[in-house]
Amino acid sequence: MTRKIRMGMIGGGKDAFIGAVHRIAANIDGQVEFCCGALSVNPEVARESGKMLFLPEDRTYENYEDMIRKESELPADQRIDFITIVTPNFAHFAPAMMALDHGFNVVIEKPIALSLDEAKQLQQKVEETGLILCLTHTYSGYPMVKQAREMVKEGKFGAIRKVIVEYPQGWLSTLTEREGNAGAAWRTDPSKSGKSGCMGDIGTHAAQLAEYISGLKITKLCADLNIVVPGRGLDDDGNVLLKFDNGSNGVLIASQIAAGEENALKIKIYGEKGGLEWHQMEPNTLLVKWLDAPAQVYRAGQAYLSDLAKHNTRVPGGHPEGYLEAFANIYRNFTSTVSAKIEGTTPTEAMLDFPRVEDGVRGMAFIENVVASSQSDQKWFDFNL
Amino acid sequence: MTRKIRMGMIGGGKDAFIGAVHRIAANIDGQVEFCCGALSVNPEVARESGKMLFLPEDRTYENYEDMIRKESELPADQRIDFITIVTPNFAHFAPAMMALDHGFNVVIEKPIALSLDEAKQLQQKVEETGLILCLTHTYSGYPMVKQAREMVKEGKFGAIRKVIVEYPQGWLSTLTEREGNAGAAWRTDPSKSGKSGCMGDIGTHAAQLAEYISGLKITKLCADLNIVVPGRGLDDDGNVLLKFDNGSNGVLIASQIAAGEENALKIKIYGEKGGLEWHQMEPNTLLVKWLDAPAQVYRAGQAYLSDLAKHNTRVPGGHPEGYLEAFANIYRNFTSTVSAKIEGTTPTEAMLDFPRVEDGVRGMAFIENVVASSQSDQKWFDFNL
Amino acid sequence: MTRKIRMGMIGGGKDAFIGAVHRIAANIDGQVEFCCGALSVNPEVARESGKMLFLPEDRTYENYEDMIRKESELPADQRIDFITIVTPNFAHFAPAMMALDHGFNVVIEKPIALSLDEAKQLQQKVEETGLILCLTHTYSGYPMVKQAREMVKEGKFGAIRKVIVEYPQGWLSTLTEREGNAGAAWRTDPSKSGKSGCMGDIGTHAAQLAEYISGLKITKLCADLNIVVPGRGLDDDGNVLLKFDNGSNGVLIASQIAAGEENALKIKIYGEKGGLEWHQMEPNTLLVKWLDAPAQVYRAGQAYLSDLAKHNTRVPGGHPEGYLEAFANIYRNFTSTVSAKIEGTTPTEAMLDFPRVEDGVRGMAFIENVVASSQSDQKWFDFNL
Amino acid sequence: MTRKIRMGMIGGGKDAFIGAVHRIAANIDGQVEFCCGALSVNPEVARESGKMLFLPEDRTYENYEDMIRKESELPADQRIDFITIVTPNFAHFAPAMMALDHGFNVVIEKPIALSLDEAKQLQQKVEETGLILCLTHTYSGYPMVKQAREMVKEGKFGAIRKVIVEYPQGWLSTLTEREGNAGAAWRTDPSKSGKSGCMGDIGTHAAQLAEYISGLKITKLCADLNIVVPGRGLDDDGNVLLKFDNGSNGVLIASQIAAGEENALKIKIYGEKGGLEWHQMEPNTLLVKWLDAPAQVYRAGQAYLSDLAKHNTRVPGGHPEGYLEAFANIYRNFTSTVSAKIEGTTPTEAMLDFPRVEDGVRGMAFIENVVASSQSDQKWFDFNL
Repeated sequence: MTRKIRMGMIGGGKDAFIGAVHRIAANIDGQVEFCCGALSVNPEVARESGKMLFLPEDRTYENYEDMIRKESELPADQRIDFITIVTPNFAHFAPAMMALDHGFNVVIEKPIALSLDEAKQLQQKVEETGLILCLTHTYSGYPMVKQAREMVKEGKFGAIRKVIVEYPQGWLSTLTEREGNAGAAWRTDPSKSGKSGCMGDIGTHAAQLAEYISGLKITKLCADLNIVVPGRGLDDDGNVLLKFDNGSNGVLIASQIAAGEENALKIKIYGEKGGLEWHQMEPNTLLVKWLDAPAQVYRAGQAYLSDLAKHNTRVPGGHPEGYLEAFANIYRNFTSTVSAKIEGTTPTEAMLDFPRVEDGVRGMAFIENVVASSQSDQKWFDFNL
Repeated sequence: MTRKIRMGMIGGGKDAFIGAVHRIAANIDGQVEFCCGALSVNPEVARESGKMLFLPEDRTYENYEDMIRKESELPADQRIDFITIVTPNFAHFAPAMMALDHGFNVVIEKPIALSLDEAKQLQQKVEETGLILCLTHTYSGYPMVKQAREMVKEGKFGAIRKVIVEYPQGWLSTLTEREGNAGAAWRTDPSKSGKSGCMGDIGTHAAQLAEYISGLKITKLCADLNIVVPGRGLDDDGNVLLKFDNGSNGVLIASQIAAGEENALKIKIYGEKGGLEWHQMEPNTLLVKWLDAPAQVYRAGQAYLSDLAKHNTRVPGGHPEGYLEAFANIYRNFTSTVSAKIEGTTPTEAMLDFPRVEDGVRGMAFIENVVASSQSDQKWFDFNL
Repeated sequence: MTRKIRMGMIGGGKDAFIGAVHRIAANIDGQVEFCCGALSVNPEVARESGKMLFLPEDRTYENYEDMIRKESELPADQRIDFITIVTPNFAHFAPAMMALDHGFNVVIEKPIALSLDEAKQLQQKVEETGLILCLTHTYSGYPMVKQAREMVKEGKFGAIRKVIVEYPQGWLSTLTEREGNAGAAWRTDPSKSGKSGCMGDIGTHAAQLAEYISGLKITKLCADLNIVVPGRGLDDDGNVLLKFDNGSNGVLIASQIAAGEENALKIKIYGEKGGLEWHQMEPNTLLVKWLDAPAQVYRAGQAYLSDLAKHNTRVPGGHPEGYLEAFANIYRNFTSTVSAKIEGTTPTEAMLDFPRVEDGVRGMAFIENVVASSQSDQKWFDFNL
Repeated sequence: MTRKIRMGMIGGGKDAFIGAVHRIAANIDGQVEFCCGALSVNPEVARESGKMLFLPEDRTYENYEDMIRKESELPADQRIDFITIVTPNFAHFAPAMMALDHGFNVVIEKPIALSLDEAKQLQQKVEETGLILCLTHTYSGYPMVKQAREMVKEGKFGAIRKVIVEYPQGWLSTLTEREGNAGAAWRTDPSKSGKSGCMGDIGTHAAQLAEYISGLKITKLCADLNIVVPGRGLDDDGNVLLKFDNGSNGVLIASQIAAGEENALKIKIYGEKGGLEWHQMEPNTLLVKWLDAPAQVYRAGQAYLSDLAKHNTRVPGGHPEGYLEAFANIYRNFTSTVSAKIEGTTPTEAMLDFPRVEDGVRGMAFIENVVASSQSDQKWFDFNL
C-alpha cells in the first residue's frame, strides 16, 4: 500500500457498541485514516462524537446524505475511499445504496438489510458499480476459523457428514428492552430489526460460519423459532435442523435467553476421518479430532498452520488475539483489496477472503426461510434464495 | 443391611463389555454376592466365563431358563435375590418376564426391550408381582447429575426454558460391524437392536438424562434420523427438536458417526435465572451459570452439595469418581431397596432414586416416536406413550 | 487366577476414609475376598465395623496381634494371603513387621513408616522373607500416568530436562485439627505423623510420581518447608528445588493451605523434543506437547495407547475412570503377583508394576532429606538414602 | 483529550516483532498519532520501514540522535509528545536518557536497561525532569489481572499466604540463535541482553505480575538458574523460591526450554479464605476459589467486575480481548496521563495504573539478585534494591 485508505462512518456515535468496534478494527493495523462521519441522527451527539474522535469539524456531518454528497465532491486525494455503515438494520439499505451510487466502497454490519429483496437490490448495485461491499461477519475473521476452513477444503477429514453450530447468549433473558437497553430495544422491534430477532442477529452469524468452514451450502431447513420471554416482539430463541448440498445434516441453535451465557458461539464439524471443534470465546485453539489417533490442539500463531491462518495473525503463538483482531482481519483484507484496486494491482486470494454482498444475500435468505419454516407445519423447507 | 444381596447374571460372558461393567458396579461396595450365571449362549464360553469369575460349577448354567428354574428351587438362604440381564436388546424381554414370574427382582440394560409393547408388558408384570425392575441408565447415577436435578427442583434457575443435550460418539464412523465388531453387529441389525440404532442405543440415554435433570417430560418432537454410513441397517445419527410439558423447547443430538468423539454426552439446561452444564467425560464438575453473577464450578465430594449428591459419592472432593461409580450408584441404590424389602423396612427416597420400568417404557416410546417422526413429513409429533 | 486372593485388614473401621478406599479398590475386580479384620483399636468400633462389612464374628479381631497370630494358624485353604494396613503412620511399622514375620504379604498406605530407619528394617525383612510389600502410591496407578512413563521410557521426548510437580490442597487452611477433624489431628501431630506433615502426606506422592514417570532419581534438593497456619505442629506447606540424576532440574510444590484447592496434583515434564502434562483431577487425559507440531490429547481407553496403559483400564474411551480405579489397579497388579506366586507362575512385567518397599524407603528418605534441607542454610542437599 | 498524542519510535523496523506490537497497541484506540521514527540502525531498513508505515520522509530518521534532536526543535504543535524505545536491551539506556534530557516522555520495553545501575540513573533522570517513563510489562495490562489485584487489595482472600507463578516457553529448546533467529541471538548474548537470559526476558514479567497482583514485595530469594541447551551463553531456564514482605512464600518458574509451551504464563495466589488463578493464554477468565464454596469463574466484560477491570476493557463479555488489548491498555493509560499533563488536569488513579521507572528498577534488581543467588551456596538472598 502506498497510502492509508480513507474511511467515513455512518452511525456509531459515542456509546454505540458496534461503531467503536469498527473504529478499533480499522485502527489496529495503521492502514486506515478515519476522515469523516455522520455519527448520529441526533446533531448534538453527532458533533460531540466527532470531537471526541478527533474528526475535523467540517467533516463531522449531521446526516449521511450530506456526508455522501459532500465527500463525493472532494478532490481525489482527500475524498474517502469507503463508508462504514453501523446503524441498526433498518437503516442499512438507503445509505448503502446512496454510497454505492456515489462511488464509495461500503462496509456494512450484518444483517445486510431488512429483507431479502433489499439485499438483492444491493447485490445488483454492487455488480453494476463494480464497487466492493464488505459485510462484517466477524467470526469468519478468526485465524483458527480460517485454519478449519483450509483443513476441510484440503480434505483432511474426508467428506463432511455433520455440522453442529450453537450460538447461545443470555442478555435477553429479561425484558431488558423495556429498561432502557437501546441495543435490545431496536433488536426486538420488527420495524427496526426485520422479520427475525435472534435468528437475524446471531443465527445468521452461525449459519455463515457453518457454510464458511464446511464449504457446504444449506439446502433445506426445519426451524423452531420461539419467543421465550413473554411480551417480546420477535424471536429470542430458535433451533434449526439443516441439510447441506452434499447430503450431510446439521443443527443450528441460537438463543438470547440462555441465561448465564455470554457470546458462546461454538461449532463442531465431523467428516469421514475426523472432526474439528472451535469455540469463539477461546478462539486461538482449534481442536482437531481423529478417528484412530489422539486429538490435536492447533493453536494460532504456530508455524504448522496454513498460510491463510498465518496471514490473519499478528503475534506469535501464546499471545492471544481476540474478537477485535478478527474484526480487524476483515478490515485489513477489505482495505488491502480496496488499495489494490486503487493501485491497479490484483488482490491476492488471501486479501479477497472477507464476507461480501453474496453473504448478505444468503444471510437474508436464511432469515426469511427460517421464519417461513417456523410458521409452517411442513417439516422440511427448501433454502430459497 | 444384614447380609449381602445375591446376584445372578444372564449374558455377560468373557469379552462382553457391559457384563463386566455390571459386575464391577455390583462389586464395588461389597454389598453384592455374585452367585450364578447363564453367561453365554455358547456353552463353552459360559463354562469358561463362570470359572474365570469364580462361580461354582453347579451354578454356572448353560441357559437362562435352567438358571431361573433351578435357582428358584434353592432354599431361601441360598437363592439369588435378583438377576441382571446384559444380553443384546432382543434378548431382554423373555428372560426378564421369566425372572419376574419366578419371583426375582431384575436389572436390565437399556433399552428395556425391543418394542414399546414389550416394555408395557414388563411394566404390567412388575406391577402384578410387586418386584423391582432396575434399568441401568448409568448417566443418571452420577452425583453431579443428581446435584443438577436437585438444583432445578429447588427452583434455583426459575422455570426451565431450554434443554440442549448432545451425545456424540465416533465408533460407527466406518462399517465396523462388517469387520468383526460384535457390539456393532447386533446394534446395527434391526432384528437384534429394534427399530432404531443410534437413537435406541444412546439417544434414549440423552432423553432420560434430559428428563431426569429438568424434571420435565417431552411432549412433542420433530426428528431427523440418518443412516450416514452407506450400507448400514439402522440409523447411526440423528437430531431431534423437542417440546416439554412446561412449554419449553429443546434439542437432542445423538450420533455414532461423529468421528473422533468418544462418549461425549453433554447437557445444558437454561432457566429464567441461570443455567447449568454437565459433561459426562468430566463428570465431577457441574458448571452453574447465573444471569448477573460469575459462573460457579460445583465439584463432586464437596460439603456444599445436596444430600442426594453426597449419598452417591464415595470419596472426598478432588478424588475423581467416574462411570463405574455412577453405575455402582444405581446398583447400590437398587440393592439397598431390595435389602429394605427383604428386611421389611421402608427404603429412603435416596435409595429409591434409580431408573426403573417406567423409564424403560418412556425410553421405548421415545424410540418409536422418533422413528415415526423421522419417517413423516409432518413437523411435530406428539410423544405418544 | 484359580481362586480369589484372601485379604485381612488392620485399621479402616467405619468412618475411616482410606480404609473404605482400600476395600473398594480390592472389591472392584472381584478377585479379592475380604476375610477378616482388626478394624479399630476401639473394640466396639471394631465389632460394629466387622458386622457392617459382613465379616464373620470369629474373624473380627480386637487387635492386630490376635489377628495375625490366629490367621497364621488357619489351614492353608482358609488363611488370608495378605494384610492391608491402613492405620495412621505411626502404626504401620509394628503390624507390618509382625505380618511379614508370620508369612503374610502386606499392603501399606504411604508413607511406609515413621522414619527412614523403620523403612529400611521393613526392606530388610521383605528381602529376608521373600514376601511382597505393596505401597499404595495411588497416583502411579492411573493409566495415563503409565502411558506417560512409557512414552518417556521410549524416548519420545528425548532426554528429560525439567520436571514440575505441584500438589496443592486447601483442607488445612484453618486449624481444623482442633475442631474434631481426626484425619487432620494425627497428620499434624509429629508423634503420629513423623517428621513432616504436608511433605510426608502428599509431597511423597508428588516425588514418587515425578520419579515414576520421568524414570529419573532425585539426587539433590533445596527445600523450604513452612508452617503457615499459626499453632500447627508440622509443616503444612513447602517448596523444593530438585536436581535429578541426569542433571535435569525440577520443582516440587506441596501445600495443604492452598485455600480452595481440592486434590490438585499436576505434573509437567519437558524433554528435548516435547513434553507432557497430567492433572490428577482430570486423569483420563494426558496432554502431549511437541516442539513443532500441535499438542496431542491422549485419552484413556484408546487403541493407540501402550499395553501398560491398556492393562490398567477397564472401560472404553470416554467412560471416565478415576481414583478408585487407579487404586484398584495397584491392588489388581499386586493381587495378580501374589496369585502367580501361589500358583508358581512368573508374574508379567505389567503385574509387577506397583509400588513396593523400595518406594517406601525412597519416600522416607525424601521426607528426612527435605526436613533437613529446610532447616539448613546450605543451599543444596544430597538426597541421602 | 483534546488532541491525539504524538509518538516517535526508536527501533521496531519491519520484521521486528515487538515494534509492530507497540504500534498496534498505540493505534487501537485512535488516540495516538505515529509521527516519526528511527526505526533501524540499517539506513535502508529504516527508510523502507518508514515508507511502509506511511511516515513522512523528513521524519524518517537514520539514527535516534538525529530524531531526538530534530524533533525537539519542532514547534510545539508538531513536536512528538513521547518516544517509544523498542531496541534490544543494550540499546535502551542511551536513547532513553537522551529522550528525557530533551523533554520527551518515554515508553520502554522491559527490562528497562542492562544493569541495575543504569536503571537507577534513569530513575533519577525521571525524577529530575518530571517526565513520565512507561515500562511495558504487558501482562499487568490485562483486565482480569487488574480484577485480581483489586480483589486481593479489598481483602477478599484475607492475608496472602502463597504465590506460584510460572512462565514456560519452548522456543529456545534448540540452539535457534545459531540458525538465524535474530531475537534469540541477542537474547542469549550477554553483551546485548545483560546478566540473565530467560530470567531477564520473562522471569521479570513473572516477578512483576506476582507483585502487582499480590500487592506484596519480594524480600528474599533462592535461585537456581540453568543453561539447559549446551553451548548457550545465558540461562534459558530457572526456578526461584521466594519470600514476600508479609512473610508469605512463593515459587517462580521461568523457562524457555519447556518444549511445546508457547507463552504459558500462569499465576496462582492463595490467601486465608480462598485463592485465584489466571492464565495468560486464556486471559479473559479469572478463576476464584473459596475455602467452603464453589469456585467462581470471573469473566472480562461483565457488570460485576471492579471499575479498574472495566476501565481496561473495550468490548462486552464473551468477545475475547487479548495480548494486544492488554498492551493497548498500558498505552491508553500512559497516553491519558500524558494528555492530562499537557492539558494541566489531574490524571485519575485508573490512568496512572501503568508500570513505570520504579518497576524497571525492581526488575533490574530482580535480575541481579537472582543471578547472584544462583551463583552462591548460600540458601536465601535478600532482595537488594
